[in-house]
Amino acid sequence: METVRYGIIGIGNMGHAHALSLLSEIKGAELVAVCDTRTERLEWAEANLPESVQRYATPTELFESKSIDAVLISTPHYDHPTLAIEAFQYGYHVLIEKPAGVYTKAVKEMNDVAAQTDLKFGIMYNQRTNPLYQKLRDLIQTGELGEIRRTNWIITNWYRSQSYYNSGGWRATWAGEGGGVLLNQDPHQLDLWQWTIGMMPKRVRAFCHIGKYRNIEVEDDVTAYVEYENGATGLFITTTGEAPGTNRFEITGDNGKIVVEDDTLSFWRLRTPEPQFNAEFTGGFGSPECWKCEIPVESGGGQQHKGILRNFTNAILHNEPLLAPGEEGIHGLTLSNAMYLSSWTDNWVDLPLNEDLYYELLMEKVNSSTFQIENAVSKTLDVTGTH
Amino acid sequence: METVRYGIIGIGNMGHAHALSLLSEIKGAELVAVCDTRTERLEWAEANLPESVQRYATPTELFESKSIDAVLISTPHYDHPTLAIEAFQYGYHVLIEKPAGVYTKAVKEMNDVAAQTDLKFGIMYNQRTNPLYQKLRDLIQTGELGEIRRTNWIITNWYRSQSYYNSGGWRATWAGEGGGVLLNQDPHQLDLWQWTIGMMPKRVRAFCHIGKYRNIEVEDDVTAYVEYENGATGLFITTTGEAPGTNRFEITGDNGKIVVEDDTLSFWRLRTPEPQFNAEFTGGFGSPECWKCEIPVESGGGQQHKGILRNFTNAILHNEPLLAPGEEGIHGLTLSNAMYLSSWTDNWVDLPLNEDLYYELLMEKVNSSTFQIENAVSKTLDVTGTH
Repeated sequence: METVRYGIIGIGNMGHAHALSLLSEIKGAELVAVCDTRTERLEWAEANLPESVQRYATPTELFESKSIDAVLISTPHYDHPTLAIEAFQYGYHVLIEKPAGVYTKAVKEMNDVAAQTDLKFGIMYNQRTNPLYQKLRDLIQTGELGEIRRTNWIITNWYRSQSYYNSGGWRATWAGEGGGVLLNQDPHQLDLWQWTIGMMPKRVRAFCHIGKYRNIEVEDDVTAYVEYENGATGLFITTTGEAPGTNRFEITGDNGKIVVEDDTLSFWRLRTPEPQFNAEFTGGFGSPECWKCEIPVESGGGQQHKGILRNFTNAILHNEPLLAPGEEGIHGLTLSNAMYLSSWTDNWVDLPLNEDLYYELLMEKVNSSTFQIENAVSKTLDVTGTH
Repeated sequence: METVRYGIIGIGNMGHAHALSLLSEIKGAELVAVCDTRTERLEWAEANLPESVQRYATPTELFESKSIDAVLISTPHYDHPTLAIEAFQYGYHVLIEKPAGVYTKAVKEMNDVAAQTDLKFGIMYNQRTNPLYQKLRDLIQTGELGEIRRTNWIITNWYRSQSYYNSGGWRATWAGEGGGVLLNQDPHQLDLWQWTIGMMPKRVRAFCHIGKYRNIEVEDDVTAYVEYENGATGLFITTTGEAPGTNRFEITGDNGKIVVEDDTLSFWRLRTPEPQFNAEFTGGFGSPECWKCEIPVESGGGQQHKGILRNFTNAILHNEPLLAPGEEGIHGLTLSNAMYLSSWTDNWVDLPLNEDLYYELLMEKVNSSTFQIENAVSKTLDVTGTH
């Protein structure tokens, strides 16, 4: 194979941006088809994409066309697992948008099907291309920070006005998105939270506030506390209601602390690891000598979406290792599912998650919903720089 | 009255520093007596204080001497309320060290007695003299920040080694101190947390970890989540086990956010208050214009302990308003009591606190304790710059 022939399912906000990238910026990739169930999006494709790009009104037509090698799934979240499973069954490589799905029960089925194929399976975790988080992961995985003791991510700069929510009736509903800030805005941070430190919590206690700042039926403000197997604790604090908000990720370990904020990474490194200092020190008051280290990090935020498209294409063509294997999408989703479940039951949630209970309670919310956003207008928004 | 004649009860770590201040640095104050039940501390007083300073082995002898106008109580925490009540009954003005006590039930009794006198009652909340927190309070109380939405204090730079805990057998025990990091290290932050924002939570959910980093029987690591009546949420994260730790207090309001960290205060101020922006904006993605404002704050940390001693002295002599009225000591203590209770019951704690239940559970811990610190050596530590 010399080029990967891509079909995109869903050419709304994100999908149409991927289409333009695949057309011109990804070596070894060829956009041969797009698919959308909305007439106006196919009209957009007709007007804006080369004639050679086939247009389909249903995924089945696209799958049956046999004109593609790989499919990029950029539909509403609920459909990611079902479409991915179908695509694998047709023998296509699959790249899904984040989140992996809405509930882990479906995502696990998708992962099981993927595991039975030799096809490539990726997820659009474009923030994994960000040199800041790559360096953070490096410092942790190579032991520079030592054993992790605390993680604390304040990610409250996802400001969204009511106007944003009114731009689509499916937005911020249980039936449409299956959640709010955790499902739409936070999937990258939920992934990076576990990817950089290399561990998942063992239990979660979360506090989700529904429609606190906006007229929506899902959460727009969350505080989640977690405990890890090794005794470490963690916090994840997020909202779409605050401006300007904060994006600050602090991680403490035996050898000091790291803070990622304002596009910089700072490492306060102890000269002696804290446990050793504590064992040897006899002076009453006193603490380990600490050096504030400037860690070099490549600027610019990395290749982002295009980096994932390049990596996925190279994985198919040259067996390049995937930066964001699709199977790993379940981790971030498990975290958000656990946060909802903890909030709904007003109690601890242990991991592995009770995925059947979660699905049952989610479906209750979907089925009992009477919520309608007033004056909802369906719009494809310009998402430049927002995801 | 031209000078206030002070007696100090307890001349250990803090009390002996106050003695030296009163001797030479507080206009209108005169140190006339000290009291300590420990012979070695009276010997220290004999060797280091002027002969004119009387020495007493019991508070009763000091009270009966009738040689003083005011008493400064700098004993172990449990004794603050009982000694204060006794001092009021003798007709003395009372300044207590922090915390106000160990459990609010006793502190409320102290407050009730104080309310029945015309005597001055103060608490050594020296951090209230810090211009940073005074400015923060000013910006909030004058409405510059708008309605509060979130408070988040990461106060993890209270590093204490095992050597510190071994310096006194009473340290970090239920019977000796009645708690750990919340009772010994955090009383200032717990006070400032509510004093600067001007409100107390309505409920608390906290996670206290006992002896996580040190061989102690009380907590050395706490994460507490709170909810306020106005819908705001808050976090308080603290430990003695981390180095170098963090001291970062972030407060979000309708008009932006303030961060106090590294001895600076930064105000990200929205040009238009967020609720107004949200009501008027129709553009989908978009957020209020934000100005990062450099707020002038006097440097140097304020007069600290000496500022409280001066203010208390002037309150007696010239009726100067108290910066830290003793009655307000109950607020910070209520917060820590509620955190323990939430953790012990693994559940929410509503405020006002069930103070009888708290007292009962605390006494169970005191009475069932079999804990002994190995190699405990009683030492008076040099506390310069640590409280």
